[in-house]
Amino acid sequence: MDWNVKDLSRHQASKLLHSTIMPRPIAFVTTLNPDGSANAAPFSFFNVLCTQPAIVAIGLDGDVEAEDGLKDTARNIAANGEFVINLVDEGLVEAMNICSIDFPTGIDETVQAGLDLVPSRQVRSPRIAASPVQFECRVMQRLPLVAGRCIVLGEIVHMHVRDDIVDSNFHVDIQKLNVIGRMHGAGWYTRTSSLFQVPRIDYAQWLERGRDSP
Amino acid sequence: MDWNVKDLSRHQASKLLHSTIMPRPIAFVTTLNPDGSANAAPFSFFNVLCTQPAIVAIGLDGDVEAEDGLKDTARNIAANGEFVINLVDEGLVEAMNICSIDFPTGIDETVQAGLDLVPSRQVRSPRIAASPVQFECRVMQRLPLVAGRCIVLGEIVHMHVRDDIVDSNFHVDIQKLNVIGRMHGAGWYTRTSSLFQVPRIDYAQWLERGRDSP
Repeated sequence: MDWNVKDLSRHQASKLLHSTIMPRPIAFVTTLNPDGSANAAPFSFFNVLCTQPAIVAIGLDGDVEAEDGLKDTARNIAANGEFVINLVDEGLVEAMNICSIDFPTGIDETVQAGLDLVPSRQVRSPRIAASPVQFECRVMQRLPLVAGRCIVLGEIVHMHVRDDIVDSNFHVDIQKLNVIGRMHGAGWYTRTSSLFQVPRIDYAQWLERGRDSP
Repeated sequence: MDWNVKDLSRHQASKLLHSTIMPRPIAFVTTLNPDGSANAAPFSFFNVLCTQPAIVAIGLDGDVEAEDGLKDTARNIAANGEFVINLVDEGLVEAMNICSIDFPTGIDETVQAGLDLVPSRQVRSPRIAASPVQFECRVMQRLPLVAGRCIVLGEIVHMHVRDDIVDSNFHVDIQKLNVIGRMHGAGWYTRTSSLFQVPRIDYAQWLERGRDSP
């Protein structure tokens, strides 16, 4: 089946995109509210786009159903020009889900979720202590879209990786990291435990392979 | 451990980002070369960022080791202002890997990989017939970075989903779709077969839960 996107409703387009562009990495974003308290909300319209400069993109629209959490993150990023991305492992899923609740303004979701926050090195937004990897980011560019939605491009200025999952050669222990990915619909996620390797082939090996075939 | 990003080499930063921001969805991008032949190359610095307008981002930098493939895609997108994203299921992995080979200019990787191409509806770039989901895209914004790397924001103008994996209510059969995600290092991928659900909680349910606890 195929559709001209302009003939789809927001709900239809959203349903198709959420349930096909997968698995999505998760940015559990911490920012500072105007009163100095912390805000935390998860987003899966997120990825790294360049390694040097280290640039990430976040779409402040997506599978966060709590409209207030969404607005808070977008407003805080616009006001402060900075934020922290905390990656999410299986152990952090429950707390992340609590931070998606549509709490009334004034209720600190990090307290409700029992999350310990720790100071960052280069930005004022705190980090989530239980997250295995945290990136301190400064806003590189904001692209406002319709109706309060926007895209934020951020530059990672400082990286934190939990001691037991990285060595001095920058090798990351994937099994200990145990990140999860966002899938479709109402709260479906994928583990990253069913892996397979497809070794890269270079041109010389490709020619070799051709010679070997009948 | 933590690092100021400006103290990391490109290799070190790249290694940390590739092996922590995971799992990444894969865009197998088809474009038209200046001579009218097709170019196909996979990128995992990719995600949807907004559903209406339907915006995707691709970092033309990343885990594609074939420098020429990378340059071709970036150059073709700049020249034509359009491209097609083909999503990748387990059956398409081998062909995708062949398209990552550093073929000399003039060798059509889609022919080498045995890929059938089919016309698009709104753009000139062809689609990969064997891909379960294809998005026809027009460039919304290009952000050139250092050394030939750039970020492309594209608007999806037309969507194709294989008949057997979507119904008239826009419900996608995730198991039949069977997309894979990009993981770390030299060609590691994850299946999306080990799923779990964390049902969303609303504020009323949260208050209810608090009353139930001791």
